[in-house]
Amino acid sequence: MSGQFYGVGVGPGDPGLLTLLGVEILGLADVVIAPLSEKADESIALTISRPHLKDDVEVREMVFPMVFCPQELNSAWQQNKETIQALLEEGKTIVFITLGDPMVYSTYSYLQQLIQDSGYPVTTVPGVTSFCEMASQLGVPLAQGEEPLCVLPATCREEILDLALQNFDNIVLMKASRNFASLRQKLADAGRLQEAIMVSRCGWPDEQVFTDLSELEPSQVQYLSTILVKRKG
Amino acid sequence: MSGQFYGVGVGPGDPGLLTLLGVEILGLADVVIAPLSEKADESIALTISRPHLKDDVEVREMVFPMVFCPQELNSAWQQNKETIQALLEEGKTIVFITLGDPMVYSTYSYLQQLIQDSGYPVTTVPGVTSFCEMASQLGVPLAQGEEPLCVLPATCREEILDLALQNFDNIVLMKASRNFASLRQKLADAGRLQEAIMVSRCGWPDEQVFTDLSELEPSQVQYLSTILVKRKG
Repeated sequence: MSGQFYGVGVGPGDPGLLTLLGVEILGLADVVIAPLSEKADESIALTISRPHLKDDVEVREMVFPMVFCPQELNSAWQQNKETIQALLEEGKTIVFITLGDPMVYSTYSYLQQLIQDSGYPVTTVPGVTSFCEMASQLGVPLAQGEEPLCVLPATCREEILDLALQNFDNIVLMKASRNFASLRQKLADAGRLQEAIMVSRCGWPDEQVFTDLSELEPSQVQYLSTILVKRKG
Repeated sequence: MSGQFYGVGVGPGDPGLLTLLGVEILGLADVVIAPLSEKADESIALTISRPHLKDDVEVREMVFPMVFCPQELNSAWQQNKETIQALLEEGKTIVFITLGDPMVYSTYSYLQQLIQDSGYPVTTVPGVTSFCEMASQLGVPLAQGEEPLCVLPATCREEILDLALQNFDNIVLMKASRNFASLRQKLADAGRLQEAIMVSRCGWPDEQVFTDLSELEPSQVQYLSTILVKRKG
Protein backbone atom coordinates (compact mmCIF):
# COMPACT_ATOMS: atom_id res chain seq x y z
CA MET A 1 0.00 0.00 0.00
CA SER A 2 1.43 3.33 -1.01
CA GLY A 3 1.82 6.20 1.40
CA GLN A 4 0.14 9.58 1.59
CA PHE A 5 1.39 12.85 0.16
CA TYR A 6 0.33 16.11 1.79
CA GLY A 7 1.14 19.74 1.20
CA VAL A 8 0.71 22.11 4.11
CA GLY A 9 0.78 25.89 3.90
CA VAL A 10 2.30 27.00 7.19
CA GLY A 11 1.33 30.67 6.77
CA PRO A 12 3.50 33.73 6.23
CA GLY A 13 5.87 33.50 9.20
CA ASP A 14 4.08 33.92 12.54
CA PRO A 15 3.84 30.39 13.99
CA GLY A 16 0.36 31.30 15.30
CA LEU A 17 -0.93 31.49 11.75
CA LEU A 18 -0.63 27.76 11.21
CA THR A 19 -4.08 26.17 10.89
CA LEU A 20 -5.46 23.44 13.17
CA LEU A 21 -5.62 21.07 10.20
CA GLY A 22 -2.04 21.94 9.28
CA VAL A 23 -0.92 21.04 12.82
CA GLU A 24 -2.82 17.75 12.62
CA ILE A 25 -1.22 16.78 9.30
CA LEU A 26 2.28 17.77 10.47
CA GLY A 27 1.82 15.39 13.38
CA LEU A 28 1.22 12.50 10.98
CA ALA A 29 4.40 12.99 8.99
CA ASP A 30 6.98 10.22 8.70
CA VAL A 31 8.95 12.42 6.33
CA VAL A 32 8.85 16.21 6.11
CA ILE A 33 10.10 17.85 2.95
CA ALA A 34 11.33 21.40 3.30
CA PRO A 35 12.13 23.12 0.02
CA LEU A 36 15.40 24.99 0.00
CA SER A 37 16.40 27.86 -2.23
CA GLU A 38 19.60 29.83 -2.25
CA LYS A 39 17.67 32.59 -0.51
CA ALA A 40 17.42 30.48 2.67
CA ASP A 41 13.92 31.71 3.49
CA GLU A 42 12.26 28.37 3.26
CA SER A 43 13.87 26.69 6.22
CA ILE A 44 11.66 29.07 8.17
CA ALA A 45 8.77 26.82 7.19
CA LEU A 46 10.62 24.09 9.07
CA THR A 47 11.09 26.28 12.15
CA ILE A 48 7.34 26.97 12.16
CA SER A 49 6.52 23.27 11.72
CA ARG A 50 9.07 21.75 14.12
CA PRO A 51 7.01 21.91 17.38
CA HIS A 52 4.24 19.89 15.73
CA LEU A 53 6.36 17.07 14.26
CA LYS A 54 6.88 13.60 15.68
CA ASP A 55 10.21 13.12 17.50
CA ASP A 56 11.43 10.51 15.03
CA VAL A 57 10.35 12.36 11.89
CA GLU A 58 12.78 12.35 9.00
CA VAL A 59 13.45 15.83 7.64
CA ARG A 60 14.58 16.15 4.05
CA GLU A 61 15.61 19.47 2.63
CA MET A 62 15.27 19.47 -1.13
CA VAL A 63 16.52 22.02 -3.61
CA PHE A 64 14.05 22.83 -6.39
CA PRO A 65 15.42 24.92 -9.24
CA MET A 66 13.47 28.10 -10.02
CA VAL A 67 12.88 26.84 -13.53
CA PHE A 68 10.39 23.99 -13.71
CA CYS A 69 11.92 21.28 -15.90
CA PRO A 70 10.60 17.85 -14.88
CA GLN A 71 11.00 16.40 -18.37
CA GLU A 72 14.73 17.03 -18.39
CA LEU A 73 16.47 13.74 -17.62
CA ASN A 74 18.33 13.77 -14.30
CA SER A 75 17.04 17.26 -13.55
CA ALA A 76 16.67 18.11 -9.85
CA TRP A 77 12.87 18.16 -10.38
CA GLN A 78 12.94 14.66 -11.81
CA GLN A 79 15.23 13.39 -9.06
CA ASN A 80 13.12 14.90 -6.29
CA LYS A 81 10.00 13.38 -7.75
CA GLU A 82 11.62 9.95 -7.88
CA THR A 83 12.83 10.27 -4.28
CA ILE A 84 9.30 11.10 -3.16
CA GLN A 85 7.81 8.25 -5.18
CA ALA A 86 10.22 5.79 -3.59
CA LEU A 87 9.20 6.99 -0.12
CA LEU A 88 5.51 6.70 -1.05
CA GLU A 89 6.12 3.14 -2.23
CA GLU A 90 7.55 2.40 1.22
CA GLY A 91 4.17 3.49 2.63
CA LYS A 92 5.49 6.68 4.20
CA THR A 93 3.33 9.67 5.08
CA ILE A 94 5.07 12.61 3.45
CA VAL A 95 4.32 16.23 4.24
CA PHE A 96 5.69 18.99 2.05
CA ILE A 97 5.74 22.31 3.93
CA THR A 98 5.53 25.67 2.28
CA LEU A 99 5.40 29.29 3.47
CA GLY A 100 2.11 31.12 2.90
CA ASP A 101 -0.43 29.25 0.80
CA PRO A 102 0.57 26.21 -1.30
CA MET A 103 -1.33 27.41 -4.39
CA VAL A 104 -0.01 30.99 -4.46
CA TYR A 105 3.43 31.23 -6.13
CA SER A 106 4.94 28.15 -4.54
CA THR A 107 7.27 25.38 -5.60
CA TYR A 108 4.71 22.99 -4.18
CA SER A 109 2.10 23.89 -6.80
CA TYR A 110 4.32 22.35 -9.51
CA LEU A 111 5.30 19.34 -7.42
CA GLN A 112 1.73 18.36 -6.44
CA GLN A 113 0.89 18.13 -10.13
CA LEU A 114 3.88 15.85 -10.80
CA ILE A 115 2.95 13.57 -7.91
CA GLN A 116 -0.70 13.50 -8.93
CA ASP A 117 0.22 12.76 -12.56
CA SER A 118 2.24 9.79 -11.28
CA GLY A 119 -0.94 8.32 -9.83
CA TYR A 120 -0.55 9.07 -6.14
CA PRO A 121 -3.24 10.82 -4.11
CA VAL A 122 -2.38 14.35 -2.98
CA THR A 123 -4.04 16.35 -0.21
CA THR A 124 -3.33 20.05 0.15
CA VAL A 125 -4.01 22.19 3.22
CA PRO A 126 -4.32 25.90 2.38
CA GLY A 127 -2.59 28.57 4.43
CA VAL A 128 -2.73 32.28 5.23
CA THR A 129 -1.01 34.32 2.51
CA SER A 130 1.63 36.95 3.24
CA PHE A 131 -0.53 39.65 1.68
CA CYS A 132 -3.48 38.86 3.97
CA GLU A 133 -1.16 39.02 6.98
CA MET A 134 0.24 42.32 5.75
CA ALA A 135 -3.22 43.86 5.31
CA SER A 136 -4.27 42.79 8.81
CA GLN A 137 -1.13 44.21 10.38
CA LEU A 138 -1.44 47.52 8.56
CA GLY A 139 -5.20 47.74 9.08
CA VAL A 140 -5.56 48.32 5.36
CA PRO A 141 -8.26 46.32 3.53
CA LEU A 142 -7.09 44.47 0.42
CA ALA A 143 -10.45 44.94 -1.30
CA GLN A 144 -13.93 46.06 -0.30
CA GLY A 145 -17.35 46.01 -1.92
CA GLU A 146 -17.11 45.84 -5.70
CA GLU A 147 -13.39 46.64 -5.90
CA PRO A 148 -11.02 44.30 -7.74
CA LEU A 149 -7.75 43.06 -6.29
CA CYS A 150 -4.72 42.36 -8.41
CA VAL A 151 -1.81 40.26 -7.17
CA LEU A 152 1.37 40.46 -9.24
CA PRO A 153 4.92 39.26 -8.88
CA ALA A 154 7.03 42.40 -9.31
CA THR A 155 8.82 40.50 -12.06
CA CYS A 156 5.70 40.00 -14.20
CA ARG A 157 5.46 41.22 -17.80
CA GLU A 158 5.75 44.98 -18.10
CA GLU A 159 2.47 45.43 -19.97
CA ILE A 160 0.57 43.58 -17.23
CA LEU A 161 2.12 45.81 -14.58
CA ASP A 162 1.24 48.92 -16.60
CA LEU A 163 -2.30 47.68 -17.11
CA ALA A 164 -2.75 47.00 -13.40
CA LEU A 165 -1.31 50.36 -12.32
CA GLN A 166 -3.65 52.16 -14.70
CA ASN A 167 -6.83 50.25 -13.91
CA PHE A 168 -6.77 48.60 -10.50
CA ASP A 169 -7.32 50.41 -7.21
CA ASN A 170 -5.82 47.60 -5.11
CA ILE A 171 -2.55 45.97 -6.14
CA VAL A 172 -0.28 43.59 -4.26
CA LEU A 173 3.27 43.41 -5.64
CA MET A 174 5.05 40.28 -4.45
CA LYS A 175 8.81 39.67 -4.54
CA ALA A 176 9.46 43.42 -4.61
CA SER A 177 13.19 43.07 -3.97
CA ARG A 178 13.87 41.50 -7.35
CA ASN A 179 13.75 44.71 -9.36
CA PHE A 180 12.91 47.38 -6.80
CA ALA A 181 14.44 50.33 -8.63
CA SER A 182 12.51 49.81 -11.87
CA LEU A 183 9.36 48.95 -9.93
CA ARG A 184 9.57 52.21 -8.01
CA GLN A 185 10.04 54.10 -11.26
CA LYS A 186 6.90 52.41 -12.64
CA LEU A 187 4.93 53.42 -9.56
CA ALA A 188 6.18 56.99 -9.87
CA ASP A 189 5.39 57.13 -13.61
CA ALA A 190 1.85 55.96 -12.90
CA GLY A 191 1.49 58.58 -10.17
CA ARG A 192 1.01 55.92 -7.52
CA LEU A 193 4.26 55.98 -5.54
CA GLN A 194 2.59 57.87 -2.69
CA GLU A 195 -0.04 55.11 -2.39
CA ALA A 196 2.56 52.39 -1.88
CA ILE A 197 3.39 50.75 1.44
CA MET A 198 6.07 48.08 1.63
CA VAL A 199 6.47 45.47 4.35
CA SER A 200 9.59 43.33 4.58
CA ARG A 201 9.50 40.02 6.44
CA CYS A 202 5.91 40.59 7.55
CA GLY A 203 5.05 38.98 10.87
CA TRP A 204 8.66 38.11 11.67
CA PRO A 205 10.63 39.56 14.58
CA ASP A 206 12.68 41.74 12.20
CA GLU A 207 9.68 43.00 10.21
CA GLN A 208 10.03 46.46 8.64
CA VAL A 209 7.30 48.76 7.31
CA PHE A 210 8.11 51.47 4.74
CA THR A 211 5.48 54.12 4.05
CA ASP A 212 7.79 56.24 1.88
CA LEU A 213 9.61 54.31 -0.81
CA SER A 214 11.11 57.34 -2.55
CA GLU A 215 14.38 57.49 -0.61
CA LEU A 216 14.93 53.79 -0.09
CA GLU A 217 18.22 52.24 -1.24
CA PRO A 218 17.29 49.36 -3.63
CA SER A 219 20.13 47.16 -2.37
CA GLN A 220 18.65 47.29 1.13
CA VAL A 221 15.28 45.85 0.12
CA GLN A 222 15.02 42.38 1.60
CA TYR A 223 13.98 39.19 -0.15
CA LEU A 224 10.58 38.76 1.49
CA SER A 225 9.16 42.19 0.68
CA THR A 226 5.65 42.95 -0.51
CA ILE A 227 4.20 46.26 -1.67
CA LEU A 228 0.55 47.18 -1.29
CA VAL A 229 -0.66 49.92 -3.65
CA LYS A 230 -4.03 51.28 -2.67
CA ARG A 231 -5.87 54.15 -4.26
CA LYS A 232 -7.10 56.48 -1.55
CA GLY A 233 -10.65 57.69 -1.17
CA MET B 1 -9.08 51.12 31.17
CA SER B 2 -10.74 50.39 27.89
CA GLY B 3 -11.10 46.90 26.48
CA GLN B 4 -9.56 45.22 23.49
CA PHE B 5 -11.06 44.89 20.04
CA TYR B 6 -10.03 41.96 17.85
CA GLY B 7 -11.03 40.74 14.43
CA VAL B 8 -10.51 37.08 13.66
CA GLY B 9 -10.75 35.49 10.22
CA VAL B 10 -12.08 31.99 10.89
CA GLY B 11 -11.30 30.69 7.39
CA PRO B 12 -13.64 29.63 4.59
CA GLY B 13 -15.78 27.01 6.36
CA ASP B 14 -13.76 23.95 7.40
CA PRO B 15 -13.27 24.32 11.20
CA GLY B 16 -9.75 22.91 10.74
CA LEU B 17 -8.74 26.02 8.83
CA LEU B 18 -8.91 28.22 11.91
CA THR B 19 -5.43 29.40 12.90
CA LEU B 20 -3.78 28.72 16.26
CA LEU B 21 -3.73 32.47 16.95
CA GLY B 22 -7.40 32.71 16.02
CA VAL B 23 -8.21 29.97 18.54
CA GLU B 24 -6.20 31.78 21.22
CA ILE B 25 -7.99 35.09 20.63
CA LEU B 26 -11.44 33.44 20.55
CA GLY B 27 -10.66 32.02 23.99
CA LEU B 28 -10.10 35.53 25.38
CA ALA B 29 -13.45 36.92 24.23
CA ASP B 30 -15.91 38.36 26.73
CA VAL B 31 -18.15 39.32 23.82
CA VAL B 32 -18.22 37.75 20.37
CA ILE B 33 -19.77 39.71 17.54
CA ALA B 34 -21.11 37.68 14.65
CA PRO B 35 -22.21 39.74 11.65
CA LEU B 36 -25.55 38.75 10.21
CA SER B 37 -26.80 39.34 6.71
CA GLU B 38 -30.06 38.32 5.15
CA LYS B 39 -28.14 35.55 3.44
CA ALA B 40 -27.56 33.77 6.76
CA ASP B 41 -24.09 32.61 5.80
CA GLU B 42 -22.30 34.42 8.54
CA SER B 43 -23.66 32.53 11.51
CA ILE B 44 -21.43 29.75 10.18
CA ALA B 45 -18.52 31.81 11.51
CA LEU B 46 -20.12 31.35 14.93
CA THR B 47 -20.47 27.59 14.47
CA ILE B 48 -16.76 27.40 13.61
CA SER B 49 -15.80 29.56 16.59
CA ARG B 50 -18.10 28.06 19.24
CA PRO B 51 -15.83 25.21 20.47
CA HIS B 52 -13.10 27.73 21.28
CA LEU B 53 -15.20 30.26 23.23
CA LYS B 54 -15.47 30.63 26.99
CA ASP B 55 -18.62 29.10 28.50
CA ASP B 56 -19.88 32.46 29.72
CA VAL B 57 -19.14 34.41 26.55
CA GLU B 58 -21.76 36.85 25.41
CA VAL B 59 -22.68 36.39 21.74
CA ARG B 60 -24.08 39.37 19.86
CA GLU B 61 -25.35 39.01 16.35
CA MET B 62 -25.26 42.35 14.57
CA VAL B 63 -26.77 43.28 11.24
CA PHE B 64 -24.54 45.46 9.08
CA PRO B 65 -26.19 46.92 5.98
CA MET B 66 -24.43 46.19 2.69
CA VAL B 67 -24.04 49.92 2.11
CA PHE B 68 -21.44 51.51 4.36
CA CYS B 69 -23.00 54.67 5.83
CA PRO B 70 -21.46 55.41 9.24
CA GLN B 71 -22.03 59.17 8.92
CA GLU B 72 -25.75 58.77 8.63
CA LEU B 73 -27.31 59.54 12.02
CA ASN B 74 -28.95 56.51 13.63
CA SER B 75 -27.76 54.25 10.83
CA ALA B 76 -27.19 50.62 11.79
CA TRP B 77 -23.45 51.20 11.22
CA GLN B 78 -23.47 54.12 13.67
CA GLN B 79 -25.51 52.19 16.23
CA ASN B 80 -23.28 49.12 16.03
CA LYS B 81 -20.20 51.27 16.47
CA GLU B 82 -21.68 52.92 19.56
CA THR B 83 -22.65 49.55 21.04
CA ILE B 84 -19.09 48.31 20.58
CA GLN B 85 -17.61 51.50 22.04
CA ALA B 86 -19.81 51.15 25.12
CA LEU B 87 -18.60 47.56 25.61
CA LEU B 88 -14.98 48.68 25.16
CA GLU B 89 -15.50 51.37 27.79
CA GLU B 90 -16.65 48.60 30.17
CA GLY B 91 -13.24 46.99 29.62
CA LYS B 92 -14.58 44.06 27.63
CA THR B 93 -12.51 41.95 25.27
CA ILE B 94 -14.49 41.94 22.04
CA VAL B 95 -13.85 39.57 19.17
CA PHE B 96 -15.48 40.15 15.80
CA ILE B 97 -15.56 36.94 13.76
CA THR B 98 -15.60 36.82 10.01
CA LEU B 99 -15.54 34.08 7.35
CA GLY B 100 -12.38 33.86 5.25
CA ASP B 101 -9.91 36.69 5.73
CA PRO B 102 -10.93 39.93 7.49
CA MET B 103 -9.31 42.17 4.87
CA VAL B 104 -10.78 40.51 1.77
CA TYR B 105 -14.34 41.71 1.03
CA SER B 106 -15.59 41.69 4.59
CA THR B 107 -17.87 43.85 6.71
CA TYR B 108 -15.11 43.83 9.31
CA SER B 109 -12.74 45.81 7.09
CA TYR B 110 -15.07 48.82 7.33
CA LEU B 111 -15.76 48.36 11.03
CA GLN B 112 -12.11 48.11 12.10
CA GLN B 113 -11.50 51.51 10.52
CA LEU B 114 -14.42 53.05 12.43
CA ILE B 115 -13.21 51.61 15.74
CA GLN B 116 -9.63 52.68 15.06
CA ASP B 117 -10.76 56.19 14.09
CA SER B 118 -12.57 56.38 17.43
CA GLY B 119 -9.23 55.91 19.19
CA TYR B 120 -9.40 52.27 20.27
CA PRO B 121 -6.66 49.80 19.48
CA VAL B 122 -7.59 47.10 16.97
CA THR B 123 -5.83 43.79 16.38
CA THR B 124 -6.67 41.71 13.34
CA VAL B 125 -5.87 38.03 12.83
CA PRO B 126 -5.77 37.04 9.15
CA GLY B 127 -7.47 33.90 7.87
CA VAL B 128 -7.44 31.46 4.98
CA THR B 129 -9.44 32.83 2.02
CA SER B 130 -12.13 30.84 0.24
CA PHE B 131 -10.20 31.02 -3.04
CA CYS B 132 -7.06 29.50 -1.47
CA GLU B 133 -9.16 26.68 -0.05
CA MET B 134 -10.80 26.16 -3.43
CA ALA B 135 -7.45 25.97 -5.24
CA SER B 136 -6.09 23.43 -2.74
CA GLN B 137 -9.18 21.25 -3.04
CA LEU B 138 -9.14 21.30 -6.83
CA GLY B 139 -5.37 20.91 -7.03
CA VAL B 140 -5.30 23.94 -9.32
CA PRO B 141 -2.64 26.59 -8.60
CA LEU B 142 -3.96 30.16 -8.33
CA ALA B 143 -0.75 31.60 -9.78
CA GLN B 144 2.75 30.35 -10.54
CA GLY B 145 6.03 31.95 -11.51
CA GLU B 146 5.54 35.35 -13.11
CA GLU B 147 1.78 34.98 -13.63
CA PRO B 148 -0.61 37.61 -12.26
CA LEU B 149 -3.73 36.77 -10.26
CA CYS B 150 -6.88 38.83 -10.43
CA VAL B 151 -9.59 38.60 -7.78
CA LEU B 152 -12.90 40.21 -8.70
CA PRO B 153 -16.38 40.30 -7.23
CA ALA B 154 -18.63 39.12 -10.05
CA THR B 155 -20.52 42.37 -9.53
CA CYS B 156 -17.56 44.62 -10.31
CA ARG B 157 -17.61 47.23 -13.07
CA GLU B 158 -18.08 45.70 -16.51
CA GLU B 159 -14.97 47.28 -18.01
CA ILE B 160 -12.81 45.81 -15.24
CA LEU B 161 -14.26 42.36 -15.85
CA ASP B 162 -13.66 42.71 -19.61
CA LEU B 163 -10.11 43.91 -19.01
CA ALA B 164 -9.39 40.97 -16.71
CA LEU B 165 -10.88 38.38 -19.05
CA GLN B 166 -8.80 39.73 -21.92
CA ASN B 167 -5.49 40.07 -20.09
CA PHE B 168 -5.23 37.83 -17.04
CA ASP B 169 -4.53 34.11 -17.14
CA ASN B 170 -5.75 33.51 -13.58
CA ILE B 171 -9.01 35.05 -12.39
CA VAL B 172 -11.05 34.41 -9.26
CA LEU B 173 -14.67 35.55 -9.49
CA MET B 174 -16.23 35.92 -6.05
CA LYS B 175 -19.97 36.13 -5.29
CA ALA B 176 -20.76 34.39 -8.56
CA SER B 177 -24.41 33.82 -7.70
CA ARG B 178 -25.27 37.53 -7.85
CA ASN B 179 -25.41 37.78 -11.64
CA PHE B 180 -24.53 34.31 -12.83
CA ALA B 181 -26.31 34.47 -16.19
CA SER B 182 -24.59 37.65 -17.39
CA LEU B 183 -21.28 36.48 -15.95
CA ARG B 184 -21.49 33.26 -17.90
CA GLN B 185 -22.28 35.22 -21.06
CA LYS B 186 -19.17 37.36 -20.43
CA LEU B 187 -17.04 34.24 -20.03
CA ALA B 188 -18.45 32.79 -23.24
CA ASP B 189 -17.94 36.06 -25.16
CA ALA B 190 -14.32 36.14 -24.03
CA GLY B 191 -13.87 32.51 -25.11
CA ARG B 192 -13.10 31.44 -21.56
CA LEU B 193 -16.19 29.53 -20.45
CA GLN B 194 -14.40 26.19 -20.90
CA GLU B 195 -11.64 27.35 -18.53
CA ALA B 196 -14.08 28.06 -15.69
CA ILE B 197 -14.60 25.87 -12.64
CA MET B 198 -17.14 26.84 -10.01
CA VAL B 199 -17.23 25.65 -6.41
CA SER B 200 -20.23 26.31 -4.21
CA ARG B 201 -19.88 26.25 -0.40
CA CYS B 202 -16.24 25.16 -0.66
CA GLY B 203 -15.08 23.03 2.26
CA TRP B 204 -18.59 22.55 3.63
CA PRO B 205 -20.39 19.22 3.85
CA ASP B 206 -22.69 20.21 0.97
CA GLU B 207 -19.91 21.50 -1.29
CA GLN B 208 -20.50 21.23 -5.04
CA VAL B 209 -17.99 21.45 -7.89
CA PHE B 210 -19.09 22.42 -11.41
CA THR B 211 -16.65 21.89 -14.26
CA ASP B 212 -19.19 22.71 -16.97
CA LEU B 213 -21.11 25.92 -16.40
CA SER B 214 -22.86 25.95 -19.77
CA GLU B 215 -25.99 24.04 -18.76
CA LEU B 216 -26.34 25.31 -15.21
CA GLU B 217 -29.62 26.90 -14.15
CA PRO B 218 -28.77 30.40 -12.80
CA SER B 219 -31.41 30.19 -10.06
CA GLN B 220 -29.67 27.10 -8.64
CA VAL B 221 -26.34 28.84 -8.10
CA GLN B 222 -25.82 29.16 -4.36
CA TYR B 223 -24.76 32.27 -2.45
CA LEU B 224 -21.23 31.15 -1.55
CA SER B 225 -20.04 30.31 -5.05
CA THR B 226 -16.66 31.16 -6.51
CA ILE B 227 -15.44 30.69 -10.08
CA LEU B 228 -11.81 30.07 -10.98
CA VAL B 229 -10.88 30.92 -14.57
CA LYS B 230 -7.51 29.56 -15.54
CA ARG B 231 -5.91 29.69 -18.95
CA LYS B 232 -4.58 26.26 -19.82
CA GLY B 233 -1.08 25.48 -20.93
